[in-house]
Amino acid sequence: MRVHAECYQCFISQAIRSSRLFYEDRQHLLRPAQEVVRILRDINVELPPPLISEDVYGTIRKSLGIEDPYKQIKRKYNDIALKYEDFAVSEIEQANDPLLYAIRLSLAGNIIDFGSQIGSFSLENTIDEVVKNPLDLTDFDLFEKDLQKADRVVLLADNAGEIVFDKILLKTIKELYPKKELFIIVRGGPIINDVSLEDALYVGIDKIAKVIDSGQLIPGFWPDFAKGECKTVYESADIVISKGQGNFETLSEFEDRRVYFLFLIKCSVVAHYLGLKKLSKIFIRNDERWARLRA
Amino acid sequence: MRVHAECYQCFISQAIRSSRLFYEDRQHLLRPAQEVVRILRDINVELPPPLISEDVYGTIRKSLGIEDPYKQIKRKYNDIALKYEDFAVSEIEQANDPLLYAIRLSLAGNIIDFGSQIGSFSLENTIDEVVKNPLDLTDFDLFEKDLQKADRVVLLADNAGEIVFDKILLKTIKELYPKKELFIIVRGGPIINDVSLEDALYVGIDKIAKVIDSGQLIPGFWPDFAKGECKTVYESADIVISKGQGNFETLSEFEDRRVYFLFLIKCSVVAHYLGLKKLSKIFIRNDERWARLRA
Repeated sequence: MRVHAECYQCFISQAIRSSRLFYEDRQHLLRPAQEVVRILRDINVELPPPLISEDVYGTIRKSLGIEDPYKQIKRKYNDIALKYEDFAVSEIEQANDPLLYAIRLSLAGNIIDFGSQIGSFSLENTIDEVVKNPLDLTDFDLFEKDLQKADRVVLLADNAGEIVFDKILLKTIKELYPKKELFIIVRGGPIINDVSLEDALYVGIDKIAKVIDSGQLIPGFWPDFAKGECKTVYESADIVISKGQGNFETLSEFEDRRVYFLFLIKCSVVAHYLGLKKLSKIFIRNDERWARLRA
Repeated sequence: MRVHAECYQCFISQAIRSSRLFYEDRQHLLRPAQEVVRILRDINVELPPPLISEDVYGTIRKSLGIEDPYKQIKRKYNDIALKYEDFAVSEIEQANDPLLYAIRLSLAGNIIDFGSQIGSFSLENTIDEVVKNPLDLTDFDLFEKDLQKADRVVLLADNAGEIVFDKILLKTIKELYPKKELFIIVRGGPIINDVSLEDALYVGIDKIAKVIDSGQLIPGFWPDFAKGECKTVYESADIVISKGQGNFETLSEFEDRRVYFLFLIKCSVVAHYLGLKKLSKIFIRNDERWARLRA
Protein backbone atom coordinates (compact mmCIF):
# COMPACT_ATOMS: atom_id res chain seq x y z
CA MET A 1 0.00 0.00 0.00
CA ARG A 2 1.40 3.36 -1.01
CA VAL A 3 1.30 6.81 0.59
CA HIS A 4 -2.08 8.56 0.40
CA ALA A 5 -2.88 12.24 1.00
CA GLU A 6 -4.08 11.51 4.54
CA CYS A 7 -0.65 10.06 5.41
CA TYR A 8 0.83 13.58 5.24
CA GLN A 9 -1.55 14.65 7.96
CA CYS A 10 -0.82 11.54 9.94
CA PHE A 11 2.97 11.98 9.85
CA ILE A 12 2.60 15.50 11.27
CA SER A 13 0.19 14.23 13.89
CA GLN A 14 2.78 11.61 14.87
CA ALA A 15 5.40 14.33 15.28
CA ILE A 16 3.06 16.27 17.55
CA ARG A 17 2.12 13.19 19.56
CA SER A 18 5.73 12.18 20.11
CA SER A 19 6.66 15.71 21.17
CA ARG A 20 3.72 15.90 23.56
CA LEU A 21 5.27 13.07 25.55
CA PHE A 22 7.90 15.61 26.63
CA TYR A 23 6.59 19.12 25.98
CA GLU A 24 3.39 21.12 26.09
CA ASP A 25 4.50 24.55 24.83
CA ARG A 26 3.94 25.90 21.34
CA GLN A 27 7.62 26.33 20.41
CA HIS A 28 8.65 22.80 21.36
CA LEU A 29 5.67 21.30 19.56
CA LEU A 30 6.27 23.41 16.45
CA ARG A 31 9.83 22.30 15.84
CA PRO A 32 9.31 18.57 15.10
CA ALA A 33 6.23 19.42 12.99
CA GLN A 34 8.32 21.86 10.95
CA GLU A 35 11.06 19.28 10.48
CA VAL A 36 8.57 16.65 9.37
CA VAL A 37 7.08 19.06 6.81
CA ARG A 38 10.59 19.48 5.40
CA ILE A 39 10.89 15.72 5.00
CA LEU A 40 7.42 15.40 3.47
CA ARG A 41 8.20 17.92 0.77
CA ASP A 42 10.47 15.45 -1.02
CA ILE A 43 9.04 12.02 -0.31
CA ASN A 44 8.38 9.41 -2.95
CA VAL A 45 4.64 8.85 -2.78
CA GLU A 46 4.98 5.50 -4.53
CA LEU A 47 6.49 4.01 -1.36
CA PRO A 48 4.49 2.42 1.46
CA PRO A 49 3.99 4.74 4.47
CA PRO A 50 6.28 2.78 6.87
CA LEU A 51 9.23 3.43 4.55
CA ILE A 52 8.52 7.16 4.90
CA SER A 53 8.10 6.73 8.68
CA GLU A 54 11.76 5.79 8.82
CA ASP A 55 12.74 9.34 7.82
CA VAL A 56 9.87 10.97 9.68
CA TYR A 57 10.77 9.31 13.00
CA GLY A 58 14.47 9.88 12.41
CA THR A 59 13.70 13.59 12.19
CA ILE A 60 11.43 13.53 15.22
CA ARG A 61 14.08 11.75 17.28
CA LYS A 62 16.74 14.23 16.19
CA SER A 63 14.50 17.22 16.76
CA LEU A 64 13.56 15.99 20.25
CA GLY A 65 17.13 14.91 20.97
CA ILE A 66 15.74 11.66 22.38
CA GLU A 67 16.77 8.26 21.03
CA ASP A 68 13.66 6.35 22.03
CA PRO A 69 10.70 8.66 22.84
CA TYR A 70 8.35 5.73 23.48
CA LYS A 71 10.69 3.85 25.86
CA GLN A 72 8.55 4.42 28.96
CA ILE A 73 5.30 3.75 27.10
CA LYS A 74 6.64 0.49 25.72
CA ARG A 75 7.65 -0.63 29.21
CA LYS A 76 4.29 0.41 30.62
CA TYR A 77 2.28 -1.52 28.02
CA ASN A 78 4.51 -4.57 28.26
CA ASP A 79 3.75 -4.56 32.00
CA ILE A 80 0.02 -4.05 31.45
CA ALA A 81 -0.12 -6.88 28.92
CA LEU A 82 1.94 -9.21 31.11
CA LYS A 83 -0.83 -8.97 33.71
CA TYR A 84 -3.18 -10.57 31.16
CA GLU A 85 -0.83 -13.49 30.52
CA ASP A 86 -2.18 -16.03 33.03
CA PHE A 87 -5.77 -15.15 32.16
CA ALA A 88 -5.07 -15.50 28.43
CA VAL A 89 -3.28 -18.82 28.81
CA SER A 90 -6.09 -20.31 30.87
CA GLU A 91 -8.78 -19.00 28.47
CA ILE A 92 -6.91 -20.61 25.57
CA GLU A 93 -6.58 -23.92 27.43
CA GLN A 94 -10.32 -24.02 27.97
CA ALA A 95 -11.21 -22.93 24.44
CA ASN A 96 -12.83 -25.26 21.91
CA ASP A 97 -10.23 -24.22 19.38
CA PRO A 98 -7.09 -23.05 21.22
CA LEU A 99 -5.35 -21.89 18.03
CA LEU A 100 -8.26 -19.73 16.95
CA TYR A 101 -8.64 -18.31 20.45
CA ALA A 102 -4.94 -17.46 20.57
CA ILE A 103 -5.26 -15.73 17.19
CA ARG A 104 -8.18 -13.71 18.50
CA LEU A 105 -6.21 -12.58 21.55
CA SER A 106 -3.19 -11.71 19.43
CA LEU A 107 -5.51 -9.66 17.21
CA ALA A 108 -6.95 -7.86 20.25
CA GLY A 109 -3.43 -7.01 21.42
CA ASN A 110 -2.97 -5.05 18.19
CA ILE A 111 -5.11 -2.26 19.65
CA ILE A 112 -1.99 -1.10 21.56
CA ASP A 113 -0.64 1.38 19.03
CA PHE A 114 0.74 4.89 19.40
CA GLY A 115 1.49 5.49 15.73
CA SER A 116 -2.04 5.14 14.37
CA GLN A 117 -5.08 7.38 14.16
CA ILE A 118 -6.63 5.69 17.20
CA GLY A 119 -6.70 8.44 19.81
CA SER A 120 -7.40 6.31 22.83
CA PHE A 121 -8.15 2.67 23.43
CA SER A 122 -9.17 0.17 26.07
CA LEU A 123 -7.27 -3.11 25.95
CA GLU A 124 -9.89 -4.76 28.15
CA ASN A 125 -12.83 -3.72 25.98
CA THR A 126 -10.97 -4.70 22.81
CA ILE A 127 -10.20 -8.19 24.14
CA ASP A 128 -13.84 -8.54 25.08
CA GLU A 129 -14.99 -7.39 21.63
CA VAL A 130 -12.53 -9.45 19.61
CA VAL A 131 -13.14 -12.62 21.60
CA LYS A 132 -16.94 -12.40 21.45
CA ASN A 133 -17.73 -11.00 18.01
CA PRO A 134 -17.55 -12.58 14.57
CA LEU A 135 -14.22 -12.87 12.78
CA ASP A 136 -14.02 -13.64 9.06
CA LEU A 137 -12.64 -17.18 9.16
CA THR A 138 -12.44 -17.71 5.39
CA ASP A 139 -8.67 -18.01 5.59
CA PHE A 140 -8.43 -19.82 8.92
CA ASP A 141 -8.62 -23.27 7.32
CA LEU A 142 -5.89 -22.32 4.84
CA PHE A 143 -3.82 -21.03 7.74
CA GLU A 144 -4.28 -24.21 9.77
CA LYS A 145 -3.34 -26.41 6.80
CA ASP A 146 -0.28 -24.29 5.99
CA LEU A 147 0.70 -24.33 9.66
CA GLN A 148 0.39 -28.12 9.91
CA LYS A 149 2.73 -28.54 6.93
CA ALA A 150 5.18 -25.86 8.01
CA ASP A 151 8.59 -26.52 9.52
CA ARG A 152 9.56 -22.89 10.11
CA VAL A 153 7.04 -20.39 11.44
CA VAL A 154 7.94 -16.68 11.51
CA LEU A 155 5.96 -14.04 13.36
CA LEU A 156 6.63 -10.46 12.30
CA ALA A 157 6.10 -8.51 15.52
CA ASP A 158 4.43 -5.13 15.74
CA ASN A 159 3.98 -3.27 19.02
CA ALA A 160 5.18 -3.46 22.61
CA GLY A 161 2.44 -4.77 24.89
CA GLU A 162 0.87 -6.54 21.92
CA ILE A 163 3.99 -8.73 21.89
CA VAL A 164 2.78 -10.49 25.05
CA PHE A 165 -0.28 -11.74 23.15
CA ASP A 166 1.95 -12.80 20.25
CA LYS A 167 4.09 -14.72 22.73
CA ILE A 168 0.95 -16.53 23.86
CA LEU A 169 0.02 -17.29 20.24
CA LEU A 170 3.47 -18.74 19.58
CA LYS A 171 3.27 -20.68 22.85
CA THR A 172 -0.06 -22.15 21.72
CA ILE A 173 1.45 -23.12 18.35
CA LYS A 174 4.40 -24.71 20.17
CA GLU A 175 2.10 -26.78 22.36
CA LEU A 176 0.05 -27.93 19.38
CA TYR A 177 3.10 -28.58 17.18
CA PRO A 178 6.17 -29.07 19.39
CA LYS A 179 8.49 -29.85 16.48
CA LYS A 180 8.15 -26.60 14.55
CA GLU A 181 10.93 -24.05 14.55
CA LEU A 182 9.52 -20.73 15.75
CA PHE A 183 11.00 -17.32 15.00
CA ILE A 184 10.00 -13.78 15.79
CA ILE A 185 11.33 -10.82 13.82
CA VAL A 186 11.41 -7.54 15.73
CA ARG A 187 12.30 -4.00 14.56
CA GLY A 188 15.95 -3.08 14.09
CA GLY A 189 15.77 -0.30 16.68
CA PRO A 190 13.40 2.10 18.44
CA ILE A 191 10.60 3.29 16.16
CA ILE A 192 7.30 4.53 17.68
CA ASN A 193 6.13 1.90 20.19
CA ASP A 194 7.18 -1.01 17.99
CA VAL A 195 8.86 -4.04 19.49
CA SER A 196 12.64 -3.92 19.57
CA LEU A 197 14.95 -6.63 20.88
CA GLU A 198 14.78 -5.17 24.39
CA ASP A 199 10.98 -5.49 24.54
CA ALA A 200 11.01 -9.02 23.17
CA LEU A 201 13.48 -10.13 25.82
CA TYR A 202 11.62 -8.19 28.53
CA VAL A 203 8.44 -10.20 27.99
CA GLY A 204 10.41 -13.45 27.71
CA ILE A 205 9.40 -14.35 24.19
CA ASP A 206 12.90 -15.76 23.66
CA LYS A 207 11.84 -18.76 25.75
CA ILE A 208 9.26 -19.63 23.08
CA ALA A 209 10.81 -18.53 19.79
CA LYS A 210 14.13 -17.40 18.41
CA VAL A 211 14.22 -13.61 18.31
CA ILE A 212 15.71 -11.98 15.21
CA ASP A 213 16.31 -8.28 14.65
CA SER A 214 15.05 -7.03 11.25
CA GLY A 215 17.98 -4.65 10.95
CA GLN A 216 15.44 -2.13 9.59
CA LEU A 217 14.42 1.00 11.45
CA ILE A 218 10.96 1.04 9.90
CA PRO A 219 7.57 0.30 11.50
CA GLY A 220 6.97 -2.40 8.90
CA PHE A 221 8.96 -5.08 7.05
CA TRP A 222 10.52 -4.74 3.63
CA PRO A 223 11.92 -8.11 2.45
CA ASP A 224 14.35 -6.50 -0.01
CA PHE A 225 16.15 -4.78 2.89
CA ALA A 226 16.60 -7.99 4.92
CA LYS A 227 20.17 -9.10 5.45
CA GLY A 228 22.11 -11.88 7.16
CA GLU A 229 20.20 -14.15 9.53
CA CYS A 230 16.98 -12.14 9.12
CA LYS A 231 17.10 -12.69 5.35
CA THR A 232 17.78 -16.43 5.74
CA VAL A 233 15.04 -16.89 8.32
CA TYR A 234 12.45 -14.88 6.39
CA GLU A 235 13.20 -16.57 3.09
CA SER A 236 13.18 -20.05 4.57
CA ALA A 237 9.92 -19.55 6.49
CA ASP A 238 7.07 -21.82 5.49
CA ILE A 239 4.46 -19.58 7.03
CA VAL A 240 4.62 -15.94 8.15
CA ILE A 241 2.24 -14.34 10.63
CA SER A 242 2.38 -10.63 9.86
CA LYS A 243 1.10 -8.66 12.83
CA GLY A 244 -0.16 -5.10 12.59
CA GLN A 245 -0.88 -2.41 10.07
CA GLY A 246 2.73 -1.40 9.36
CA ASN A 247 3.64 -4.91 8.22
CA PHE A 248 0.49 -4.97 6.07
CA GLU A 249 1.31 -1.58 4.53
CA THR A 250 4.71 -2.88 3.45
CA LEU A 251 4.09 -6.57 2.65
CA SER A 252 0.88 -5.86 0.72
CA GLU A 253 3.24 -4.58 -2.00
CA PHE A 254 4.45 -8.19 -2.47
CA GLU A 255 2.44 -11.25 -3.44
CA ASP A 256 3.46 -13.94 -0.99
CA ARG A 257 1.00 -16.66 -0.02
CA ARG A 258 3.12 -17.70 2.96
CA VAL A 259 2.08 -14.47 4.65
CA TYR A 260 -1.04 -14.14 6.80
CA PHE A 261 -1.98 -10.61 7.83
CA LEU A 262 -3.37 -10.28 11.34
CA PHE A 263 -4.35 -6.79 12.48
CA LEU A 264 -7.04 -4.29 13.39
CA ILE A 265 -7.63 -1.51 10.86
CA LYS A 266 -6.62 1.65 12.67
CA CYS A 267 -6.54 4.33 10.01
CA SER A 268 -8.88 5.69 7.38
CA VAL A 269 -6.39 5.10 4.56
CA VAL A 270 -6.13 1.35 5.21
CA ALA A 271 -9.89 1.20 5.85
CA HIS A 272 -10.59 2.85 2.50
CA TYR A 273 -7.94 0.72 0.77
CA LEU A 274 -9.61 -2.48 1.94
CA GLY A 275 -13.15 -1.13 1.67
CA LEU A 276 -13.77 -1.89 5.32
CA LYS A 277 -14.40 0.12 8.45
CA LYS A 278 -11.92 1.29 11.07
CA LEU A 279 -11.35 -1.34 13.78
CA SER A 280 -12.32 -4.15 11.41
CA LYS A 281 -10.57 -7.40 12.37
CA ILE A 282 -8.31 -8.61 9.58
CA PHE A 283 -7.04 -12.19 9.20
CA ILE A 284 -6.23 -12.80 5.54
CA ARG A 285 -3.68 -14.57 3.42
CA ASN A 286 -1.51 -12.33 1.24
CA ASP A 287 -2.93 -13.58 -2.06
CA GLU A 288 -5.58 -12.54 -4.52
CA ARG A 289 -8.19 -12.82 -1.78
CA TRP A 290 -7.40 -9.59 0.00
CA ALA A 291 -7.43 -7.84 -3.34
CA ARG A 292 -11.02 -9.10 -3.63
CA LEU A 293 -11.83 -7.39 -0.33
CA ARG A 294 -11.25 -4.13 -2.17
CA ALA A 295 -13.72 -4.91 -4.95
CA MET B 1 -3.16 33.96 17.61
CA ARG B 2 -0.22 32.47 15.78
CA VAL B 3 0.32 29.21 13.91
CA HIS B 4 0.61 26.12 16.13
CA ALA B 5 1.90 22.64 15.21
CA GLU B 6 -1.66 21.33 14.77
CA CYS B 7 -2.30 23.97 12.08
CA TYR B 8 0.08 22.12 9.74
CA GLN B 9 -2.13 19.06 9.99
CA CYS B 10 -5.23 21.16 9.55
CA PHE B 11 -3.98 22.88 6.38
CA ILE B 12 -3.33 19.49 4.79
CA SER B 13 -6.72 18.25 5.93
CA GLN B 14 -8.29 21.30 4.27
CA ALA B 15 -6.52 20.47 1.03
CA ILE B 16 -7.88 16.93 1.16
CA ARG B 17 -11.39 18.08 2.05
CA SER B 18 -11.50 20.61 -0.80
CA SER B 19 -10.23 18.02 -3.25
CA ARG B 20 -12.80 15.46 -2.08
CA LEU B 21 -15.54 17.77 -3.29
CA PHE B 22 -14.41 16.86 -6.82
CA TYR B 23 -12.32 13.69 -6.67
CA GLU B 24 -12.12 10.40 -4.83
CA ASP B 25 -9.01 8.80 -6.33
CA ARG B 26 -5.60 8.70 -4.70
CA GLN B 27 -3.71 10.66 -7.38
CA HIS B 28 -6.12 13.59 -7.44
CA LEU B 29 -6.19 13.77 -3.64
CA LEU B 30 -2.40 13.56 -3.39
CA ARG B 31 -1.64 16.53 -5.60
CA PRO B 32 -3.16 19.37 -3.54
CA ALA B 33 -1.76 17.81 -0.33
CA GLN B 34 1.71 17.75 -1.90
CA GLU B 35 1.37 21.36 -3.01
CA VAL B 36 0.27 22.46 0.46
CA VAL B 37 3.26 20.69 2.02
CA ARG B 38 5.47 22.73 -0.30
CA ILE B 39 3.86 25.93 0.97
CA LEU B 40 4.08 24.85 4.61
CA ARG B 41 7.79 24.28 4.37
CA ASP B 42 8.47 28.02 4.27
CA ILE B 43 5.70 29.64 6.27
CA ASN B 44 6.30 32.22 8.95
CA VAL B 45 4.95 30.60 12.10
CA GLU B 46 4.65 33.97 13.81
CA LEU B 47 1.65 34.83 11.60
CA PRO B 48 -1.97 34.00 12.43
CA PRO B 49 -3.28 30.89 10.61
CA PRO B 50 -5.71 32.77 8.30
CA LEU B 51 -2.77 34.67 6.78
CA ILE B 52 -1.24 31.30 5.90
CA SER B 53 -4.61 30.08 4.61
CA GLU B 54 -4.34 32.71 1.89
CA ASP B 55 -1.39 30.85 0.35
CA VAL B 56 -2.72 27.41 1.23
CA TYR B 57 -6.07 27.99 -0.50
CA GLY B 58 -4.40 29.76 -3.40
CA THR B 59 -2.41 26.58 -3.96
CA ILE B 60 -5.45 24.34 -3.55
CA ARG B 61 -7.41 26.41 -6.05
CA LYS B 62 -4.55 26.29 -8.53
CA SER B 63 -3.96 22.59 -8.04
CA LEU B 64 -7.67 21.81 -8.51
CA GLY B 65 -7.95 24.31 -11.36
CA ILE B 66 -11.18 25.56 -9.77
CA GLU B 67 -11.65 29.19 -8.80
CA ASP B 68 -14.27 28.65 -6.08
CA PRO B 69 -14.39 25.01 -4.89
CA TYR B 70 -17.05 25.79 -2.27
CA LYS B 71 -19.41 27.64 -4.64
CA GLN B 72 -22.13 24.95 -4.56
CA ILE B 73 -21.77 24.40 -0.83
CA LYS B 74 -22.10 28.10 -0.14
CA ARG B 75 -25.28 28.28 -2.21
CA LYS B 76 -26.66 25.17 -0.50
CA TYR B 77 -26.08 26.52 3.02
CA ASN B 78 -27.38 29.97 2.12
CA ASP B 79 -30.57 28.24 0.98
CA ILE B 80 -30.76 26.05 4.09
CA ALA B 81 -30.28 29.05 6.37
CA LEU B 82 -32.81 31.18 4.47
CA LYS B 83 -35.45 28.59 5.40
CA TYR B 84 -34.82 29.48 9.06
CA GLU B 85 -35.31 33.21 8.45
CA ASP B 86 -39.02 33.56 9.24
CA PHE B 87 -38.73 31.28 12.27
CA ALA B 88 -35.72 33.24 13.58
CA VAL B 89 -37.37 36.61 13.10
CA SER B 90 -40.53 35.53 14.92
CA GLU B 91 -38.53 33.95 17.78
CA ILE B 92 -36.62 37.20 18.19
CA GLU B 93 -39.82 39.28 18.17
CA GLN B 94 -41.23 37.17 20.99
CA ALA B 95 -38.01 37.09 23.01
CA ASN B 96 -37.61 38.94 26.33
CA ASP B 97 -34.38 40.40 25.05
CA PRO B 98 -34.46 40.51 21.23
CA LEU B 99 -30.84 41.69 20.91
CA LEU B 100 -29.52 38.86 23.06
CA TYR B 101 -31.66 36.32 21.23
CA ALA B 102 -30.41 37.59 17.87
CA ILE B 103 -26.83 37.29 19.13
CA ARG B 104 -27.49 33.71 20.18
CA LEU B 105 -28.88 32.81 16.77
CA SER B 106 -25.96 34.49 15.01
CA LEU B 107 -23.62 32.47 17.24
CA ALA B 108 -25.47 29.24 16.35
CA GLY B 109 -25.09 30.05 12.65
CA ASN B 110 -21.32 29.92 13.13
CA ILE B 111 -21.52 26.11 13.21
CA ILE B 112 -21.68 26.21 9.38
CA ASP B 113 -17.97 25.92 8.64
CA PHE B 114 -16.05 23.81 6.14
CA GLY B 115 -12.58 25.02 7.06
CA SER B 116 -12.52 23.90 10.69
CA GLN B 117 -11.88 20.63 12.47
CA ILE B 118 -15.62 20.05 12.87
CA GLY B 119 -16.28 16.97 10.74
CA SER B 120 -20.04 17.17 10.63
CA PHE B 121 -22.66 19.35 12.21
CA SER B 122 -26.38 19.80 12.65
CA LEU B 123 -27.58 23.39 12.31
CA GLU B 124 -30.89 22.49 13.94
CA ASN B 125 -29.28 20.91 17.01
CA THR B 126 -26.81 23.76 17.33
CA ILE B 127 -29.57 26.39 17.28
CA ASP B 128 -31.41 24.39 19.92
CA GLU B 129 -28.28 24.12 22.07
CA VAL B 130 -27.16 27.74 21.74
CA VAL B 131 -30.62 29.13 22.39
CA LYS B 132 -31.30 26.99 25.46
CA ASN B 133 -27.97 26.71 27.23
CA PRO B 134 -26.01 29.24 29.28
CA LEU B 135 -23.90 31.87 27.52
CA ASP B 136 -21.26 33.87 29.36
CA LEU B 137 -22.92 37.31 29.44
CA THR B 138 -20.10 39.16 31.23
CA ASP B 139 -19.51 41.33 28.17
CA PHE B 140 -23.12 41.66 27.04
CA ASP B 141 -23.73 44.79 29.15
CA LEU B 142 -20.56 46.38 27.77
CA PHE B 143 -21.70 45.47 24.28
CA GLU B 144 -25.16 46.97 24.78
CA LYS B 145 -23.71 50.20 26.18
CA ASP B 146 -21.19 50.47 23.34
CA LEU B 147 -23.91 49.72 20.82
CA GLN B 148 -26.25 52.40 22.26
CA LYS B 149 -23.50 55.02 21.93
CA ALA B 150 -22.31 53.89 18.49
CA ASP B 151 -23.08 55.64 15.24
CA ARG B 152 -21.36 53.19 12.93
CA VAL B 153 -21.68 49.45 13.49
CA VAL B 154 -19.53 47.04 11.46
CA LEU B 155 -20.09 43.30 11.28
CA LEU B 156 -17.13 41.26 9.99
CA ALA B 157 -18.81 38.35 8.25
CA ASP B 158 -17.59 34.77 8.33
CA ASN B 159 -19.34 31.94 6.50
CA ALA B 160 -22.05 31.48 3.89
CA GLY B 161 -25.27 30.22 5.49
CA GLU B 162 -24.20 31.78 8.78
CA ILE B 163 -24.60 35.15 7.00
CA VAL B 164 -28.41 34.76 7.10
CA PHE B 165 -28.28 34.76 10.90
CA ASP B 166 -25.96 37.77 10.83
CA LYS B 167 -28.47 39.53 8.59
CA ILE B 168 -31.14 38.84 11.22
CA LEU B 169 -28.83 40.19 13.94
CA LEU B 170 -28.24 43.39 11.95
CA LYS B 171 -31.99 43.65 11.23
CA THR B 172 -32.66 43.40 14.98
CA ILE B 173 -30.11 46.13 15.68
CA LYS B 174 -31.73 48.29 12.98
CA GLU B 175 -35.16 47.86 14.53
CA LEU B 176 -33.87 48.72 17.99
CA TYR B 177 -31.70 51.61 16.79
CA PRO B 178 -32.98 52.83 13.41
CA LYS B 179 -30.50 55.71 13.18
CA LYS B 180 -27.30 53.70 13.25
CA GLU B 181 -25.23 53.22 10.12
CA LEU B 182 -24.76 49.50 9.55
CA PHE B 183 -21.95 47.92 7.53
CA ILE B 184 -20.93 44.39 6.76
CA ILE B 185 -17.43 43.51 5.60
CA VAL B 186 -17.17 40.35 3.49
CA ARG B 187 -14.11 38.52 2.10
CA GLY B 188 -12.35 39.93 -0.94
CA GLY B 189 -12.99 36.76 -2.98
CA PRO B 190 -13.70 33.05 -2.72
CA ILE B 191 -11.90 31.43 0.23
CA ILE B 192 -13.28 28.19 1.74
CA ASN B 193 -16.99 28.70 2.42
CA ASP B 194 -16.51 32.27 3.61
CA VAL B 195 -18.94 34.98 2.57
CA SER B 196 -18.03 36.87 -0.56
CA LEU B 197 -19.99 39.73 -2.12
CA GLU B 198 -22.07 37.28 -4.15
CA ASP B 199 -23.30 35.44 -1.03
CA ALA B 200 -24.07 38.65 0.80
CA LEU B 201 -26.22 39.89 -2.07
CA TYR B 202 -27.81 36.44 -2.51
CA VAL B 203 -29.23 36.49 1.02
CA GLY B 204 -30.27 40.15 0.65
CA ILE B 205 -28.17 41.55 3.47
CA ASP B 206 -27.65 44.67 1.36
CA LYS B 207 -31.22 45.68 2.26
CA ILE B 208 -30.15 45.92 5.91
CA ALA B 209 -26.52 47.07 5.84
CA LYS B 210 -24.00 48.46 3.40
CA VAL B 211 -21.85 45.60 2.10
CA ILE B 212 -18.11 46.24 1.78
CA ASP B 213 -15.52 43.91 0.30
CA SER B 214 -12.40 43.48 2.50
CA GLY B 215 -10.15 43.32 -0.55
CA GLN B 216 -8.34 40.50 1.28
CA LEU B 217 -8.41 36.88 0.15
CA ILE B 218 -7.97 35.56 3.68
CA PRO B 219 -10.48 33.75 5.92
CA GLY B 220 -9.98 36.44 8.56
CA PHE B 221 -9.44 40.21 8.75
CA TRP B 222 -6.11 41.97 8.99
CA PRO B 223 -6.64 45.74 9.56
CA ASP B 224 -3.20 46.67 8.20
CA PHE B 225 -4.17 45.26 4.79
CA ALA B 226 -7.42 47.26 4.57
CA LYS B 227 -7.58 49.84 1.80
CA GLY B 228 -9.99 52.42 0.38
CA GLU B 229 -13.59 52.30 1.59
CA CYS B 230 -12.95 49.19 3.69
CA LYS B 231 -10.17 51.00 5.58
CA THR B 232 -12.34 54.12 6.11
CA VAL B 233 -15.34 52.11 7.27
CA TYR B 234 -13.33 49.85 9.60
CA GLU B 235 -11.39 52.73 11.13
CA SER B 236 -14.47 54.88 11.64
CA ALA B 237 -16.53 52.06 13.20
CA ASP B 238 -17.63 52.66 16.78
CA ILE B 239 -18.31 48.99 17.38
CA VAL B 240 -17.22 45.89 15.47
CA ILE B 241 -18.96 42.50 15.68
CA SER B 242 -16.28 40.00 14.65
CA LYS B 243 -17.94 36.75 13.59
CA GLY B 244 -16.14 33.43 13.54
CA GLN B 245 -12.84 31.85 14.37
CA GLY B 246 -10.84 33.26 11.45
CA ASN B 247 -11.59 36.83 12.45
CA PHE B 248 -10.64 35.95 16.04
CA GLU B 249 -7.38 34.33 14.94
CA THR B 250 -6.38 37.51 13.14
CA LEU B 251 -7.86 40.31 15.30
CA SER B 252 -6.71 38.73 18.55
CA GLU B 253 -3.25 39.97 17.50
CA PHE B 254 -4.52 43.55 17.97
CA GLU B 255 -5.89 45.19 21.11
CA ASP B 256 -9.06 46.96 20.06
CA ARG B 257 -11.90 47.41 22.52
CA ARG B 258 -14.35 48.27 19.75
CA VAL B 259 -14.22 44.63 18.68
CA TYR B 260 -16.54 41.96 20.10
CA PHE B 261 -15.71 38.38 19.14
CA LEU B 262 -18.70 36.14 18.51
CA PHE B 263 -17.98 32.53 17.57
CA LEU B 264 -18.03 28.85 18.44
CA ILE B 265 -14.64 27.30 19.15
CA LYS B 266 -14.15 24.76 16.40
CA CYS B 267 -10.54 23.67 16.67
CA SER B 268 -8.27 22.29 19.33
CA VAL B 269 -5.68 25.06 18.87
CA VAL B 270 -8.15 27.86 19.64
CA ALA B 271 -9.66 25.75 22.42
CA HIS B 272 -6.25 25.29 24.01
CA TYR B 273 -5.33 28.94 23.41
CA LEU B 274 -8.41 30.13 25.34
CA GLY B 275 -8.32 27.30 27.87
CA LEU B 276 -11.84 26.26 26.88
CA LYS B 277 -13.45 23.28 25.22
CA LYS B 278 -14.34 22.78 21.57
CA LEU B 279 -17.81 24.15 20.75
CA SER B 280 -17.63 26.65 23.63
CA LYS B 281 -19.72 29.73 22.87
CA ILE B 282 -17.58 32.86 22.75
CA PHE B 283 -18.90 36.42 23.13
CA ILE B 284 -16.07 38.61 24.42
CA ARG B 285 -14.68 42.09 23.97
CA ASN B 286 -11.19 42.27 22.49
CA ASP B 287 -9.56 43.67 25.61
CA GLU B 288 -7.66 42.35 28.59
CA ARG B 289 -10.65 40.20 29.52
CA TRP B 290 -10.17 37.49 26.93
CA ALA B 291 -6.55 37.30 27.95
CA ARG B 292 -7.87 36.45 31.42
CA LEU B 293 -9.77 33.54 29.93
CA ARG B 294 -6.40 32.01 29.20
CA ALA B 295 -5.16 32.28 32.79
